[in-house]
Amino acid sequence: MNERVSDRPKSGFVEHHPDDCRAVGQILDRIGDKWTVMVVGALSNGPLRFNAIMREIGGVSHRMLTLTLRGLERDGLVTRTAYATIPPKVEYELTELGRSLIEPLRVLATWAIKHRPAMERARAKFEPAKSGD
Amino acid sequence: MNERVSDRPKSGFVEHHPDDCRAVGQILDRIGDKWTVMVVGALSNGPLRFNAIMREIGGVSHRMLTLTLRGLERDGLVTRTAYATIPPKVEYELTELGRSLIEPLRVLATWAIKHRPAMERARAKFEPAKSGD
Repeated sequence: MNERVSDRPKSGFVEHHPDDCRAVGQILDRIGDKWTVMVVGALSNGPLRFNAIMREIGGVSHRMLTLTLRGLERDGLVTRTAYATIPPKVEYELTELGRSLIEPLRVLATWAIKHRPAMERARAKFEPAKSGD
Repeated sequence: MNERVSDRPKSGFVEHHPDDCRAVGQILDRIGDKWTVMVVGALSNGPLRFNAIMREIGGVSHRMLTLTLRGLERDGLVTRTAYATIPPKVEYELTELGRSLIEPLRVLATWAIKHRPAMERARAKFEPAKSGD
């Protein structure tokens, strides 16, 4: 059991360990979520208020945006700052950790935009009939 | 309405259009899914049989892996090849489109591994008490 990780066969993206896999899987589920990707994109140019983020990404419900921002805040990716003005003003901003996600997510979003037509063509061809695993 | 997309303010990751956003969001949800990331990782070194993928990624149920592979096949990211041997042999392999996803997902997985401790620390600090949006 003292086997060094680097002695294992290398497979997948990383030399892995079941616990790491589970933990990394949880993080992927959070950062790969479409609303997370879009919120990080919206905030990549600087802090924004709730309604501005909502307009920016479009199609997100108030509740879903609230949950997404709460999740990002909990994970240390976004800060929420309330200003004691009248009316009160609340701004969301990427933390340094959140900013480090911009580039990986930009690469993913760029891939999605570029390859969407190919995926849609594949899907249209697949529909007719297919079964079995 | 003939406004050229490039004349708009640039915001988020891309100059966008509501329809594109929705479509790209759907694709992000599929390719950002943790099992998708892990299956693409598992297949990044070459074709594998169902059970080998299952061992490789660990913690995935038979049903979830079946659904994930079906989705990847439908989207043109994976091919499923059945060999008429006894017993029959079925292999899964990334298509060219699927291979083009390896690098973006590797970047994302690497981010997740590197920044997991920071996210876990943030989460532990956040729990005590927090409310409001």
